[in-house]
Amino acid sequence: MSQSKMAPSIRNNMNRLFGFIHKFNFTKRTLCASVSQGNKEASVDCRVFSGIQPTGTPHLGNFLGALENWVSLQHQYPLVLYSIVDLHSITQPQDPQQLRANILDMAASLLACGIDPEKAILFQQSQVSEHTELSWILGCLTSMPRLRHLPQWKIKSKQKSEGSVGLYTYPVLQAADILLYKSTHVPVGEDQVQHLELAQDLARIFNNHYGELFPEPRTLLSSTRKVKSLRDPLSKMSKSDPHKLASITITDPPEDIALKIRRAVTDFTSEVTFEPETRPGVSNLVTIHAAMAQISVEDAVSQARGIDTGAYKNLVIEAVIERLTPIREEIERLRADHTYLESVLLQGTQKARELAAPVLKEVRHRVGFC
Amino acid sequence: MSQSKMAPSIRNNMNRLFGFIHKFNFTKRTLCASVSQGNKEASVDCRVFSGIQPTGTPHLGNFLGALENWVSLQHQYPLVLYSIVDLHSITQPQDPQQLRANILDMAASLLACGIDPEKAILFQQSQVSEHTELSWILGCLTSMPRLRHLPQWKIKSKQKSEGSVGLYTYPVLQAADILLYKSTHVPVGEDQVQHLELAQDLARIFNNHYGELFPEPRTLLSSTRKVKSLRDPLSKMSKSDPHKLASITITDPPEDIALKIRRAVTDFTSEVTFEPETRPGVSNLVTIHAAMAQISVEDAVSQARGIDTGAYKNLVIEAVIERLTPIREEIERLRADHTYLESVLLQGTQKARELAAPVLKEVRHRVGFC
Repeated sequence: MSQSKMAPSIRNNMNRLFGFIHKFNFTKRTLCASVSQGNKEASVDCRVFSGIQPTGTPHLGNFLGALENWVSLQHQYPLVLYSIVDLHSITQPQDPQQLRANILDMAASLLACGIDPEKAILFQQSQVSEHTELSWILGCLTSMPRLRHLPQWKIKSKQKSEGSVGLYTYPVLQAADILLYKSTHVPVGEDQVQHLELAQDLARIFNNHYGELFPEPRTLLSSTRKVKSLRDPLSKMSKSDPHKLASITITDPPEDIALKIRRAVTDFTSEVTFEPETRPGVSNLVTIHAAMAQISVEDAVSQARGIDTGAYKNLVIEAVIERLTPIREEIERLRADHTYLESVLLQGTQKARELAAPVLKEVRHRVGFC
Repeated sequence: MSQSKMAPSIRNNMNRLFGFIHKFNFTKRTLCASVSQGNKEASVDCRVFSGIQPTGTPHLGNFLGALENWVSLQHQYPLVLYSIVDLHSITQPQDPQQLRANILDMAASLLACGIDPEKAILFQQSQVSEHTELSWILGCLTSMPRLRHLPQWKIKSKQKSEGSVGLYTYPVLQAADILLYKSTHVPVGEDQVQHLELAQDLARIFNNHYGELFPEPRTLLSSTRKVKSLRDPLSKMSKSDPHKLASITITDPPEDIALKIRRAVTDFTSEVTFEPETRPGVSNLVTIHAAMAQISVEDAVSQARGIDTGAYKNLVIEAVIERLTPIREEIERLRADHTYLESVLLQGTQKARELAAPVLKEVRHRVGFC
């Protein structure tokens, strides 16, 4: 599938990405070589891992901040794993029927966005039992206070007034997800940096206790391109935003896209410029326009020369619709083909297990279980 | 193997039993019928689960308080599972090589004590991946404060000044161990009652969320026969007791048994009576004597008529040595036969998996993973 044919979706609210990366400027060789300085094993065995929760339709922020780059990474790294992390999703209440549908929907979204199951291992976390097994073992190496100040717990336990054990230990499972595949690189957004540091710590702690086994996973630089809320351009675009017009999901029909962009908050200056600090609303539209049309910010601004922000919105609408339409259509086609989606996930699960099983076997042996 | 041929062992310190029971006065029929009032499923499918950590040689307290009764239970219930809970043992630091040896040693101990692999499923917890999978799911249904006051955490995290995530979430894994087999009965010692309550709560919570699946496991009454320290008869016999003469392990050679009992603290009255409140030392010897000779306390006291506590100690020594010698010899024989021990555990693991897999499959479906 060509990059222009990419496209994703899902229903619920809140989809959590392990990590985001936007523009990735190194070649495969450069990266693996740079890693090899710190870790010999990684130089011959670069592995990227990332996960996404099956809990809602990706929006433009997810698409431009992460998914588009997941597609790039699969061409740049020899081994790439993308997991639909359903075990993580139940740290918040889920309706089982909805969750079941969301898992397949997320698979459809990722495939429509351009994830190629021949290049990347796309799999469902709960189907690989080694994740929770390694998580238990790593939990025995993690002190309780270590997790107390991590963002996942701090933010979400407050929202719910009291969190679950699953929510508290979420970052340990995340570390297990990463280390289970001896991952060397993890695309990480700002909100996940501390969680990746835990994975790095646990790799070190395990290696110190039981002998060198896990490479210390490195962060892949996060995108500097931040998509903001269309209603409040000082906040980032978020699924949890209660305002329906604040974010564009990748399955929005053209008329919704047009409505949301037309209603997007700008300012009282009619000229189009890119000044994120002083003119966040208009600058957010420029960011979206440039990214969706795959042109530079400068080109986007120069296309807006001589027209006011109202007219410029039409350009943005056009670029977004043009980019998202094939994705939306592909998602619709894939959603209707459950058998295909299930076969893709099954194939991915088998490949993931083949990688996970020998690592966990070695872990079990090192710990003393066999 | 006859009950008289029973015998167990292991090296390290601290072996933790999920639950203890001493005299079990109901017949199989009575028990299952009594359960059926609360749970229809259990009436046709009574299942006992218990676990023991592979972290040290069982002492007389373990043997009389728990293991002897494990042997009885296998004759009284249609389905009995005994797990060597190695995943639990790593909530405290373990030496891998020692742990590996301890697992086989614990298998030898249990077999020598009379656990019959044809009657009870004897298996190693870490080899059945469903335990940690269910534990994760149950952890998402457990609030963080729920675990804060449970004894495992309160006692051990203080000892170490700071506990691990594994230690904190220990009772959730324990609940998973129990529920995974739809266990209806769990032999429980006083120190584990609160942990079993968590398992009961989690059965209820899961059933409420996802529909009736798990029977609420019932406690099997704990032993009222408490074996005390030989050095401080006000405390219970414990492996963590630093005083070497305080406890008798089931692999102690006759000369050690004799020495420890001869040095046992009594009082300044030479007559032998059974008055645990006022004469804990002598009464502890009567308890041990009666239990090891498999006679009543009254018979033990009457055998001591006319002799002083010094002479009575010889009777106790004789009874303990007579009972433990065949057990110790059987342990030595079994310890030398790793192939046999491994085959017993492998067979047990296969049987446990056959029971666990359909339950976890159903759980996964109910939660929405498939």
